[in-house]
Amino acid sequence: MIYVNEAADPRLDDFRDLTTADRRPDRPGGRGLVIAEGTVVVRRLLASPYRPLAVLGVRRRIEELADDLAGLPVPAYVTSSEVMADVVGFHLNRGVLAVAERVPQPTVESVVADARVLAVLEGVGDHENLGSLFRNAAAFGVDGVLLGPGCADPLYRRSVRVSMGNVLRVPFAALPEWPRALLWLRERGFTVAALTPRPDAVDLRRLPNGTTGRVAVLLGSEGHGLSEQAIAAAQLAVRIPMAPGVDSLNVATAAAVAFYELTGTRAAASSGERDASAAAAN
Amino acid sequence: MIYVNEAADPRLDDFRDLTTADRRPDRPGGRGLVIAEGTVVVRRLLASPYRPLAVLGVRRRIEELADDLAGLPVPAYVTSSEVMADVVGFHLNRGVLAVAERVPQPTVESVVADARVLAVLEGVGDHENLGSLFRNAAAFGVDGVLLGPGCADPLYRRSVRVSMGNVLRVPFAALPEWPRALLWLRERGFTVAALTPRPDAVDLRRLPNGTTGRVAVLLGSEGHGLSEQAIAAAQLAVRIPMAPGVDSLNVATAAAVAFYELTGTRAAASSGERDASAAAAN
Repeated sequence: MIYVNEAADPRLDDFRDLTTADRRPDRPGGRGLVIAEGTVVVRRLLASPYRPLAVLGVRRRIEELADDLAGLPVPAYVTSSEVMADVVGFHLNRGVLAVAERVPQPTVESVVADARVLAVLEGVGDHENLGSLFRNAAAFGVDGVLLGPGCADPLYRRSVRVSMGNVLRVPFAALPEWPRALLWLRERGFTVAALTPRPDAVDLRRLPNGTTGRVAVLLGSEGHGLSEQAIAAAQLAVRIPMAPGVDSLNVATAAAVAFYELTGTRAAASSGERDASAAAAN
Repeated sequence: MIYVNEAADPRLDDFRDLTTADRRPDRPGGRGLVIAEGTVVVRRLLASPYRPLAVLGVRRRIEELADDLAGLPVPAYVTSSEVMADVVGFHLNRGVLAVAERVPQPTVESVVADARVLAVLEGVGDHENLGSLFRNAAAFGVDGVLLGPGCADPLYRRSVRVSMGNVLRVPFAALPEWPRALLWLRERGFTVAALTPRPDAVDLRRLPNGTTGRVAVLLGSEGHGLSEQAIAAAQLAVRIPMAPGVDSLNVATAAAVAFYELTGTRAAASSGERDASAAAAN
């Protein structure tokens, strides 16, 4: 623990003016930094493959992180919340933050290799929705997230925060070709299931029996939904049953329901129950 | 359509300084107004039991609402977005808003009377979470929301907006006695199912067969969870199965998953499938 009293102290330079520092280095003001706020998220950053440059916080929060910091070559600067706000350039109400450099993202192949359930996104451009979606992916044990065109950057500060740090845990990769990447997933044994409110889509509760192996859940933005090409490239169009007159769910919420069902389908299938249920219904 | 050019025009007085006007009249600055923003939410307000005083918007948005406004004794004022922001006191990016007076809320008895699935909330004090929860309740056809202690006001502007206007559609009422109200629900034939991450709770996917009738889903705040007394007053503690190392879901997301499962359980049970499935599993 290193006490710092002045906002101008050069040891805090990694934390200076962070309002645009989370952008990729090729963007204006971007330094490609990953910013974690609050003890929960800082803890996840420290446990992740990202290499933290330093931690900055009020004493109480740094003390809470003592066990996580032990043995790591990461300086922890202690100061007041006023100095923190002065240095970073925005108000923090969580009392601690850490910055890390980006690491090279895993390849699509490595995200897909051992995955059983994947989320594949098209046009999810809102940082908070994207962050929530990663949080839900982590909650239901989704193995990876693949980003199609029009998606936001999961490593922006707001995505990191809303995801509760789960963008640092759930592997993700950008898909180079669209919608051809969906055919590539099918060749690898995935059932690509497009989530859409279309009335002719299959009810999520009535999935065909084949949907118990590898599944890629294809999700579009709340506003425009999935493109025609993406739906056409999927094997299956699936809808969440909703009450009459209701048009949509938030994309991260819809994802949570689909993850719940599909990871559950898988679990039930492996314990034999779903087969029994299907047999009884037929 | 009435064109107005000046922010000082007295015909816009219902829209003046709305930053605190959504509070209940007994609160500082509160005028008890219900504020709907954007065409979707204004449309829901116009179709609700709330009585709109007036609508204010840019021409394009008012034109989109022409069919909804036809025949209603509600003046529609057209102006620029600058004048709108000047009058209401905050920035609007949806181009139209409507204000309505509160109506007396339905009694608990009337919300409960014909309900099959209810949400019962304790300590959900965040306006956005509350709004999202109403949106999800509407999506899955939950029949009503009962508010226990510590809940936010569903009619605050932010709740109305995040709910997509569904706080105006899904009936709600405040519960007077807590947790005695839960026993009262049980006497009326409801299975009160408390949602909690406790490891000894029943997996949401493995609910006992009795849970196909009337169900009240009891939900607590994300931070503190349900009180011991509330869980003790429920028949059943239920958990959403989550991946190891994941602590919680957002309360509105958890609610969506529970609503999906419980309204589905009901649907499956009424078509006889769940019974068949249970028989096969036993």
